[in-house]
Amino acid sequence: MIKTIFNHRSIRKFKPEPIPGEILQEILLAGTRASTTGNMQAYSMIVTSDFSLKEKLWEAHFKQDMVKHAPVIVTFCADFNRFNKWCTLNKAFPGYDNFLSFMAAAIDAILVAQNVALAAEDHGLGICYLGTTTYNAEKIIEILQIPKGVVPITAFPIGYPDETPGLTDRLSLNAVVHYEKYNDYFDDVIKKLYEEKENMSFYKDLLKINKKETLSQVFTDIRYTKKDNVFFSKSFLNVLKNQGFMNNEI
Amino acid sequence: MIKTIFNHRSIRKFKPEPIPGEILQEILLAGTRASTTGNMQAYSMIVTSDFSLKEKLWEAHFKQDMVKHAPVIVTFCADFNRFNKWCTLNKAFPGYDNFLSFMAAAIDAILVAQNVALAAEDHGLGICYLGTTTYNAEKIIEILQIPKGVVPITAFPIGYPDETPGLTDRLSLNAVVHYEKYNDYFDDVIKKLYEEKENMSFYKDLLKINKKETLSQVFTDIRYTKKDNVFFSKSFLNVLKNQGFMNNEI
Repeated sequence: MIKTIFNHRSIRKFKPEPIPGEILQEILLAGTRASTTGNMQAYSMIVTSDFSLKEKLWEAHFKQDMVKHAPVIVTFCADFNRFNKWCTLNKAFPGYDNFLSFMAAAIDAILVAQNVALAAEDHGLGICYLGTTTYNAEKIIEILQIPKGVVPITAFPIGYPDETPGLTDRLSLNAVVHYEKYNDYFDDVIKKLYEEKENMSFYKDLLKINKKETLSQVFTDIRYTKKDNVFFSKSFLNVLKNQGFMNNEI
Repeated sequence: MIKTIFNHRSIRKFKPEPIPGEILQEILLAGTRASTTGNMQAYSMIVTSDFSLKEKLWEAHFKQDMVKHAPVIVTFCADFNRFNKWCTLNKAFPGYDNFLSFMAAAIDAILVAQNVALAAEDHGLGICYLGTTTYNAEKIIEILQIPKGVVPITAFPIGYPDETPGLTDRLSLNAVVHYEKYNDYFDDVIKKLYEEKENMSFYKDLLKINKKETLSQVFTDIRYTKKDNVFFSKSFLNVLKNQGFMNNEI
């Protein structure tokens, strides 16, 4: 188990081989063993393998090729639609059209996703999380005909890896762990924590390619810009409203 | 690995034994192997074992006793504070004070949490997710001295189990999986999907104890009420504003 966790790499190139049905079933079932708020299971998994749908999802996911080439894309959604329907059919009045319920359902969906990811990797399959799911949730909702009460949170392709990338760098454990309370960072501590990363040849090359002075600027000016973040924030908040999760707020 | 996933139970009673240091380190390190958006690692883990702090956390988590009795409570936070500081020290202007960045960081934190949970369970330890983390984020921020740019998302106690509960029921796989697109549920399908759950003696007893006509009403009228959800939605949205994640919206 721990081995599988420590061996995780994001896989972006897949063999065309399909995933055997019983393996896919076991992986999805592993998802359902995750804890969820009140055991309400306020999530859904959408398993897409149809090529024309994958092509549309590929567009929504900023044309990342793995979305087209992997045999299967799984989209993990926060889902109160099913639970709301069950309540309404049973003389109960669901009060899950608000931001807290969205967060609870989103947490459910992400825990399920990580179980599915690890179960897949345990079977020699590879995955790569698609952050573009929240960016383009509106388009994904349209493509996958997702109803009110449901919001896509994350997604990944699953397939047999056609590449063997090395482990990705991480900050040292003391950069991300605090004991007892949060210990805020002094400037010199921050410098030390990021020093190793800044000195890696991978990131030095990234600087050159992007013609930036510092690695931080590659993130703020190119990869994750304020302009994009603000644009997609508005669009994702709109999705929450349209899908019925902000009805009691503001 | 898959075995650990299929063996998961939430543990609410813990032995007083502490977790050996090297095991705790390995578990936390397993957390850092999770994928994060752009490998920015926009999360922090706060590991609390001090009794007086645990007592305060126990209050914030609605006095669930496991919070006081487990040797360790880990609080997983969405964290752009560290990354923002690094940017500012390197002539870069971070644009992560918005809802999309919050969501990206929250997803990071939850993937890390599930890695830590599974790594702990693989070592014979037990955990129980605390949904109260979002409910009472404001109090947790105060207790753990969490700065701007950081929001607690989820938490759990870790310790050696002092109980051996059975597996919790789940809806059948076809209730939560959709193939190709989302297939919305007809009323008779919903009835069938929840029939088994409704007929379990555990839930039948719950009905009697709570003097309700239907199981759905136990959820809507007692466990997860609209009134509470609306109250905690407002308070959590306020936390996002105060912690600096809604600066570019509305």
